Amino acid sequence: MALVVQKYGGSSVADASCIKRVAQRIVATKKGNDVVVIVSAMGDTTDELLDLAEQVSPLPPARELDMLLTSGERISMALLAMAIANLGHEARSFTGSQAGVITDSTHGKARIIDVTPSRIREAIDQGHIAIVAGFQGVSQDTKDITTLGRGGSDTTAVALAAALEADVCEIYTDVDGVFTADPRIVPAARKIPKISYDEMMEMAACGAKILHLRCVEYARRFNLPIHVRSSFSTKEGTWVVADPYNEGTEMEQPIISGVAHDRSEAKITVVGVPDKVGEAATIFKTLADAEINIDMIVQNVSAAATGRTDISFTLPTADSQTALAALKKIQPQIGFESLLFDDQIGKVSLVGAGMRSHPGVTATFFAALADAGVNIEMISTSEIRISVVVGQDGVDAAVAAAHRAFDLDADQVEAVVYGGTGR
Amino acid sequence: MALVVQKYGGSSVADASCIKRVAQRIVATKKGNDVVVIVSAMGDTTDELLDLAEQVSPLPPARELDMLLTSGERISMALLAMAIANLGHEARSFTGSQAGVITDSTHGKARIIDVTPSRIREAIDQGHIAIVAGFQGVSQDTKDITTLGRGGSDTTAVALAAALEADVCEIYTDVDGVFTADPRIVPAARKIPKISYDEMMEMAACGAKILHLRCVEYARRFNLPIHVRSSFSTKEGTWVVADPYNEGTEMEQPIISGVAHDRSEAKITVVGVPDKVGEAATIFKTLADAEINIDMIVQNVSAAATGRTDISFTLPTADSQTALAALKKIQPQIGFESLLFDDQIGKVSLVGAGMRSHPGVTATFFAALADAGVNIEMISTSEIRISVVVGQDGVDAAVAAAHRAFDLDADQVEAVVYGGTGR
Repeated sequence: MALVVQKYGGSSVADASCIKRVAQRIVATKKGNDVVVIVSAMGDTTDELLDLAEQVSPLPPARELDMLLTSGERISMALLAMAIANLGHEARSFTGSQAGVITDSTHGKARIIDVTPSRIREAIDQGHIAIVAGFQGVSQDTKDITTLGRGGSDTTAVALAAALEADVCEIYTDVDGVFTADPRIVPAARKIPKISYDEMMEMAACGAKILHLRCVEYARRFNLPIHVRSSFSTKEGTWVVADPYNEGTEMEQPIISGVAHDRSEAKITVVGVPDKVGEAATIFKTLADAEINIDMIVQNVSAAATGRTDISFTLPTADSQTALAALKKIQPQIGFESLLFDDQIGKVSLVGAGMRSHPGVTATFFAALADAGVNIEMISTSEIRISVVVGQDGVDAAVAAAHRAFDLDADQVEAVVYGGTGR
Repeated sequence: MALVVQKYGGSSVADASCIKRVAQRIVATKKGNDVVVIVSAMGDTTDELLDLAEQVSPLPPARELDMLLTSGERISMALLAMAIANLGHEARSFTGSQAGVITDSTHGKARIIDVTPSRIREAIDQGHIAIVAGFQGVSQDTKDITTLGRGGSDTTAVALAAALEADVCEIYTDVDGVFTADPRIVPAARKIPKISYDEMMEMAACGAKILHLRCVEYARRFNLPIHVRSSFSTKEGTWVVADPYNEGTEMEQPIISGVAHDRSEAKITVVGVPDKVGEAATIFKTLADAEINIDMIVQNVSAAATGRTDISFTLPTADSQTALAALKKIQPQIGFESLLFDDQIGKVSLVGAGMRSHPGVTATFFAALADAGVNIEMISTSEIRISVVVGQDGVDAAVAAAHRAFDLDADQVEAVVYGGTGR
């Protein structure tokens, strides 16, 4: 009997009728499989709890915020277990702590360091459906309740699936799977039937919000297949696996799997940095000490005449003020000339394992952007990704142009790359 | 340094501003004391959660209902800890399980079987204020989350106070303490400054809703002083102690401490029971098997002519239909004639340790009822209590008449019994 781990997000359990629908889906899966379900808090619960916290304290202690927020999953998981019981199946809900999700002590963004799911295993062995609270765990050192931060429920699902050696981890969402581009920007975007962990990680890191980077990393480490699919239909979604093109009927892998974009970053340029050894290191050490995650970094060639260079980097817009303040503090020490700040940018990324073996991808991409009249401000590449920073008002045009240039638009692709199978 | 355990009910933490007010009170107590706080769920939270449960299942499993309901205290305790932190004090919240409240496995009405508060002790030793979820624990056998049922938060408070060897357990409520009668019925009722465990238990068992029987029983076992007081004032409330009259300035103890009443019971009469050994046993065994709690029982003297007798008893009105059905089943076996049912009754009880040494209490009580035109249907007594069942429309008159007859009305009492100290 296969073991299926399913994860339902907040929108899938937003109210009683949603919960009953999810319960039916779980019971249907239980016919022929063992089932473990990870569930998020209902719809707006987390926001309501945060609002309450704000009413009693402008700066609530992180430990207590975690205690507060974890009540959200406690409610949804108990209700889901009740709804399943009402359909005649035995279901038991477990907190992260009861499910053996052991984390470090970093409240609000704890990392899973171990999963010891003996109680879940026991529930499965007794023929029960186990419902587990997503997003939460218990700290190894202090035994305090922790939360995993963004993407936490997906990560719980994958970590638990790996620990239980599940056959698949199904991530339910409100869209049909991972798309070649955001369908709101590219109406011709289509669902990707299979994608590799590496590509999915690049997509996630570049703004595709459907799966969080951490959860894909975790799945890759344990070679656990993820199936991203809609909780509103029974259609196949997107499979995230190690080697998607080595099996089945596909003749060749697509060059580009998808086009991701991200409008949440800003750009800072440190102008006139003396071109000496260690100056860049000092700048990024300062930013790291301020706990700012830097994304792209570009350093121009030093102008020989001045002996100075410009260093540009992107970072989450929310961290901009902290970063600017930290840099101003070291201006006398470094001796750079000025700081430029631009939050009207967007990042557009092409992701595809196929680009390894296809030269000319960069040329095609840049030509498409030029034809669309989009100016490139920064460039960064990895083995299977090309990202460019453009003006924020050029993002939509850039995504659409790239999608078209690489024959990803639905009519072409279904026929050409996937041989018309529709998968 | 004294250790004070405080318990705040749902109405004391109904919203953010209530929580902030309670936080100030706790911080004020912390000046000069160690403080452990037990808190209930906010205002209507429990009802809202029950409503959600009803929407997903008409008969939710008890284990899952407990999981659901315990999220209520999780929210209030975290918010309270935040509000205290915002006043500059360190507070840490703990679930029942974390606080070491070990129970049996009877979901919905679990009994505390042990309290191992090592984490609470540790928090106190570090100078922190510990906030503990009331009403909940963890089962010894299954490690499942349990709830303690009615009066559960008070019981948590007393049990934890006993385990921590606290100096006092303060129970905060929305009235000033325990009154000689319900002030809505007897405007001249006054606050009782001190009362014994035994009297308080009789009061609780007879309908005084301010403290639950279980919590007073627990306090008596460990000789832990309870101070029932208002969360809206700093006035002294009612002290519940072992021997309230052996200290201080009181000249003599009052004969009657208070008049309790209860409208939640109904009366069933089994008419024409053959007067044979074992018939009454069969009747009450049947009711016990149906898990019905019987309160008062009266058996009339057998009428020699018929060899039959009538047995009347009172029980919670909510259990009436179950009881009647169970009795009808054994009618052929017992051979009683018929069943009478009356839910228009009320119980009025006089409670007072002083009645041990004062003859004539019953006579005065019954005369007062007669003068008030109230007919007595059943009588039951203990060493320190006299209860009568009367028609429901006679309850108010009976309470008022008894209160007056025993000089409990405010003007007289303050002067006569307590020597004008007002305590």
